[in-house]
Amino acid sequence: MKLGDLGGEFEFIKHVTSNIGLPPGVVKGAGDDCAVLDYSDSEYLLVTTDMMVENDHFNLKWFSPGQTGWKLSESNVSDILAMGGSPLYAFISMSLLRDTTVEFMDDFYKGLLASFKRHSVTLLGGDTTHGTEYVFNLTLVGKVDKKGIRYRSGAKPGDIICVTGRLGGSTAGLKLLLQGKQGYIDAHVSPRCRTAAEAAAIAGYANAMIDVSDGLASEVTHICRQSGTGARIDRSVIPMSAETLDAAEKTGLDPYDFALYGGEDFELLFTMDPGNIPQLNKKFNDFTAVGEILSADRGIYISVDGENQPLKKGYDHFA
Amino acid sequence: MKLGDLGGEFEFIKHVTSNIGLPPGVVKGAGDDCAVLDYSDSEYLLVTTDMMVENDHFNLKWFSPGQTGWKLSESNVSDILAMGGSPLYAFISMSLLRDTTVEFMDDFYKGLLASFKRHSVTLLGGDTTHGTEYVFNLTLVGKVDKKGIRYRSGAKPGDIICVTGRLGGSTAGLKLLLQGKQGYIDAHVSPRCRTAAEAAAIAGYANAMIDVSDGLASEVTHICRQSGTGARIDRSVIPMSAETLDAAEKTGLDPYDFALYGGEDFELLFTMDPGNIPQLNKKFNDFTAVGEILSADRGIYISVDGENQPLKKGYDHFA
Repeated sequence: MKLGDLGGEFEFIKHVTSNIGLPPGVVKGAGDDCAVLDYSDSEYLLVTTDMMVENDHFNLKWFSPGQTGWKLSESNVSDILAMGGSPLYAFISMSLLRDTTVEFMDDFYKGLLASFKRHSVTLLGGDTTHGTEYVFNLTLVGKVDKKGIRYRSGAKPGDIICVTGRLGGSTAGLKLLLQGKQGYIDAHVSPRCRTAAEAAAIAGYANAMIDVSDGLASEVTHICRQSGTGARIDRSVIPMSAETLDAAEKTGLDPYDFALYGGEDFELLFTMDPGNIPQLNKKFNDFTAVGEILSADRGIYISVDGENQPLKKGYDHFA
Repeated sequence: MKLGDLGGEFEFIKHVTSNIGLPPGVVKGAGDDCAVLDYSDSEYLLVTTDMMVENDHFNLKWFSPGQTGWKLSESNVSDILAMGGSPLYAFISMSLLRDTTVEFMDDFYKGLLASFKRHSVTLLGGDTTHGTEYVFNLTLVGKVDKKGIRYRSGAKPGDIICVTGRLGGSTAGLKLLLQGKQGYIDAHVSPRCRTAAEAAAIAGYANAMIDVSDGLASEVTHICRQSGTGARIDRSVIPMSAETLDAAEKTGLDPYDFALYGGEDFELLFTMDPGNIPQLNKKFNDFTAVGEILSADRGIYISVDGENQPLKKGYDHFA
């Protein structure tokens, strides 16, 4: 049986981790953006790991080595932010080619360390080996105030669903590149996640949080499954940039698909009591309400031109 | 310029990490078997990460998926033990093939979790993606008593150099497999590292410690470089099993080369005041003295049939 037949990677991870008990000292294991460990009286440690494979997560036709390093860091930091935390330490493993040059690796590290500097991350170790394609794995350790931690599971019926920034930009850039069209590709080759200060400001008012790495549809589904809720997304209000709409026009594709099913935008999706909007706006206002958390029996759907449609899930490596 | 021209992976890691300062809370960054983080009044946290690539670290002609998972864990736990610590939590990333089966992954996890059970490790998260060859990355978090931590840098002239168990067995098995000969291959496909209890017993008397992952010669060189010492290894007393000697005879190769330059034995190499031998023997006695730490000016050499020869270094992916 193929992993795809079992229902893809998320189902398989559930299949494997379902009967692993948590020892004392572990607050949360697999199933959120980070694992959560007891640390001090006021703080938890967060740990997340992410692997990027050549020609799957990055194509060296389009990515410089430095952009590859930058994306590896931003995509991982995003997972720490999604819990309301701040990244601290990084551990990198890489499978290089036999003939990888020092210049390639210097550029890779330049991009990686530029992102580390942006987020005050210190590189503390790693492993270097070789294979027939580039593979980079980053493990990040971060911390979060116990009061400021937010899980996927905290959404409540009546919460509004918000996203930071604009969605779909990474996939828009990828589609331009795939079709050989000119246009704005920076959101694909140099994605920027949010900052720890922004994530902490949001966490102060949010009930649930996740980062947008597999598309809005997938992240909303994760929030609903873990919170035991339903949700409605209003397609017409999904925030997209002019560059993303331009790319959709040039490629003949639907920009909403970029936002809903594309992923790698590394924005934050959060739910909160709508009464908190004014207070959060004072501290951070680059967010848009895109829907509402419902009770579980109402299902998870998207409103398209006034018609309710079931929400498909996002990208899965084995589905 | 190729990485090999710069002097290989160890030189490149030094090149990249040389000007990274350590923030408060970090006791030790890159350069030992684990990074060391402040944790509680009496304990440090340890973090290590290791990547295994198909056809480099394991060949699926010879390794079952379960043996691959087992080896991934044992090789990583060995790094925690090398600091005198105990492993606690694991995070796994894997790049699988598009057509990887559920049966393959079930067997992989069976081996991985059997080793985790042996060492009381809990799996807390990971990432699954796909590529054109199998790549597995494991990050382990462990802990160590502040008084029990041992570094590569603690060796003192006059210390004896000891290794646990027998060396060369993994390479002996690999050479049999490569030549299509019959014989004992378990040390290659199912290596067993030591246990946390053994490592802690040794750490109670050792001044410096490292695990044997790249061959005795490489590990002694690491200890000497970081301790600012020289060393003499007595080739004739390097402990090897009858199976390793048998494999050497069958393959026509030198068994001492397996032990000195082969690696992946996952035994512990440590240095201690020779006066501690009787006390350590009472708690743990599966070790052999193979040499002596010297002052730096005397160099690093190996005594072969009464003649002193310079000690070559071990395996390097890019040398």
